[in-house]
Amino acid sequence: TINKARLWQSLMDMAKIGATDKGGCCRLALTDLDKQARDLYIQWAKDAGCDIKIDQVGNIRATRPGTDSTLPPVGTGSHLDTQPTGGKFDGVFGVLAGLEVIRSLNDHQIKTRHPIEISVWTNEEGSRFAPAMMGSGVVSGRFTLDEILNKTDVEGIRLGDELERIGYAGTEPVTGRAYKAFFETHIEQGPYLEAEGKMIGVVTGGQGQRWYDVELIGQESHAGTTPMHLRTDALTCASSLILAVQSIAKANKPGCGTVGFMQVLPNSRNTIPGKITMSIDLRHPEDQALTAMDEALKAKIEALEADTGVKIALTPIWYYAPIPFDPDCIAAVREAAEALDYSHMDIIAGAGHDACYVSDFAPTSMVFTPCLNGISHNEIESTTAEECEAGCAVLFNAMLTLAQI
Amino acid sequence: TINKARLWQSLMDMAKIGATDKGGCCRLALTDLDKQARDLYIQWAKDAGCDIKIDQVGNIRATRPGTDSTLPPVGTGSHLDTQPTGGKFDGVFGVLAGLEVIRSLNDHQIKTRHPIEISVWTNEEGSRFAPAMMGSGVVSGRFTLDEILNKTDVEGIRLGDELERIGYAGTEPVTGRAYKAFFETHIEQGPYLEAEGKMIGVVTGGQGQRWYDVELIGQESHAGTTPMHLRTDALTCASSLILAVQSIAKANKPGCGTVGFMQVLPNSRNTIPGKITMSIDLRHPEDQALTAMDEALKAKIEALEADTGVKIALTPIWYYAPIPFDPDCIAAVREAAEALDYSHMDIIAGAGHDACYVSDFAPTSMVFTPCLNGISHNEIESTTAEECEAGCAVLFNAMLTLAQI
Ligand SMILES: NC(=O)NCCC(=O)O
Ligand SMILES: NC(=O)NCCC(=O)O
Repeated sequence: TINKARLWQSLMDMAKIGATDKGGCCRLALTDLDKQARDLYIQWAKDAGCDIKIDQVGNIRATRPGTDSTLPPVGTGSHLDTQPTGGKFDGVFGVLAGLEVIRSLNDHQIKTRHPIEISVWTNEEGSRFAPAMMGSGVVSGRFTLDEILNKTDVEGIRLGDELERIGYAGTEPVTGRAYKAFFETHIEQGPYLEAEGKMIGVVTGGQGQRWYDVELIGQESHAGTTPMHLRTDALTCASSLILAVQSIAKANKPGCGTVGFMQVLPNSRNTIPGKITMSIDLRHPEDQALTAMDEALKAKIEALEADTGVKIALTPIWYYAPIPFDPDCIAAVREAAEALDYSHMDIIAGAGHDACYVSDFAPTSMVFTPCLNGISHNEIESTTAEECEAGCAVLFNAMLTLAQI
Repeated sequence: TINKARLWQSLMDMAKIGATDKGGCCRLALTDLDKQARDLYIQWAKDAGCDIKIDQVGNIRATRPGTDSTLPPVGTGSHLDTQPTGGKFDGVFGVLAGLEVIRSLNDHQIKTRHPIEISVWTNEEGSRFAPAMMGSGVVSGRFTLDEILNKTDVEGIRLGDELERIGYAGTEPVTGRAYKAFFETHIEQGPYLEAEGKMIGVVTGGQGQRWYDVELIGQESHAGTTPMHLRTDALTCASSLILAVQSIAKANKPGCGTVGFMQVLPNSRNTIPGKITMSIDLRHPEDQALTAMDEALKAKIEALEADTGVKIALTPIWYYAPIPFDPDCIAAVREAAEALDYSHMDIIAGAGHDACYVSDFAPTSMVFTPCLNGISHNEIESTTAEECEAGCAVLFNAMLTLAQI
């Protein structure tokens, strides 16, 4: 059905934009490299006969018309932005699998009743601008457009200004989207498919997330003259907090807890650190457990403040409860895998995905494929052309079932 | 004897160069601001009739001739560079107290047999370029000139290039210095004089130091999809190490252990950190205890590597054993404090000072004065005009005794 070699070639061509020494990609949201990736993708989608629309938050919609223009599209898509140490597949695969579906429909001159639509969602990664899944979140109504346009990166640069600068501040409204159904294809980014020897993950939902900004204020002082018992060291306190985040996650299986971002001030060897800013990321597939993790974190912070004298400000910046996908869409993915004879298993997404927010306004599910050693957000992220083919074929099958030939 | 108001005014004038919002100074070594401070100081020293020489590592010597030009000078001095969150007194006070000694000799038209010489030593702080006390260390032979000129800051900028750029790559040789005696005046930077209610610290020596660079290599991976037990998180491992440094210092009283500098890579909220670079600073007044701390650190690192899978590279970048000052110079400071009726106590310097390295080639001691709440390397570092006067008067008295009127 689909063209494995063409899909792989497109993935490799796209991976040249922001390619890193270690074989990965660094293509942060709304940078010049993101623009280059968007431009290339739009060229490809136009060449495949798609109509292109850019909305106010920079989401790109590429549509292949159906035979009945009154019907809502069957949608797919993902993102083109990456982590600073990102791979070649996270996000990109879901976009180019969608493009391959349309190219294959063209090859076989198949007409569908419903339009087929691919979305490239703005800033899914949440690395340069936090939180993640901003483009889909604005369309779903989880975020307001204004709130997102006013987000700033660590250098204080406004998201809205970057959208303008790279020419992707579109005019299409972010409201009023509807899909017959939406499917997102993505590498699993975790170890389970590989461990179980399955080709396809039938994604039944996404785990919940809580993100925080943390500021710790101690007192700068001399590293050689300030006796240990007279210090208010923001970094030793932050270290205890980082280890507590790890313990809280371990105590709430299969939860995750991560500090990925941290800045130390004044960052001088012989000055006791006076200020730390850092992030905390907590996740759990069950909301009750996620709440328990949040409570344990707050209790730990209170205890640390009392013990160390460091002032700790914890600011929740993002929360969403675990998201169940649509039973019919889940079934469509499972049936497609079976029809194509791929081994499969049900799975919960550990990462956030645009599909999680799309499921607010459309029946949704996802198709996962394995990734080597379960490693993602790493330049060595790896998958095979066969695995990409499998995911794309399942997507093709599920979308066609719903779009009606 | 000396002019308290003039000394204070000079301190306040110098503090304008690199002044921070919170009342401190940020005047990192060999920046444009360091150049401005050097230029102003040289103007003042010339106005006081001094002869100026700049050596190959940028040290500035200002000399007031003696009546017998065959005799070695009696020296004093300190540094003009500061920490990123530095105060108005650390270093500067020792330089301007020296200048005030010469100005006062001029006021009273006092001639000395030995010349009086003030040194401004290059990069005492060791913050922008590590390690510390570079200018005095080159003159003492602890470092070679080449090794120091080739040191780079965190941005890779070479010290030698910065010296050229700001016009302080002098031609005077760094070798062949000799002093009859050397005294450095400095704020204590710690809490002991204040706690004991003493005006003058008679410094009997400096504690030993060991500095290290540390690199921790884990594996970047996704914060939401990588189960806790499958992570190789460089930051949780670094946190354990930071807390171990604290414990090692606490177990070796009155030792100090500090991590002041740390960088996290890739520094993205939802990526498990794959690489950390950080510093470690260990100090102890007894060399045996400092060795024990070094051994405990290495043992901890071995255990952490085995426990976490993170690779840890510990690179010692600086070591000096505790330094005893010269008994006669110590006595000269004590006698000066007594002659002037200042309360005093013997004290060990917790910080490194240029005097520590000068004592390799000249009889040396130091004069300490209190600083508010023992806080230094902080913009709120504070001392009074009376305390500065006391330190300068003791310096004046001790230097005159040795320089012979
Ligand atoms: N898929 C993916 O890596 N999304 C980034 C947002 C998250 O951290 O879950
Ligand atoms: N006096 C002073 O703060 N020196 C800096 C070098 C050190 O950390 O001891």
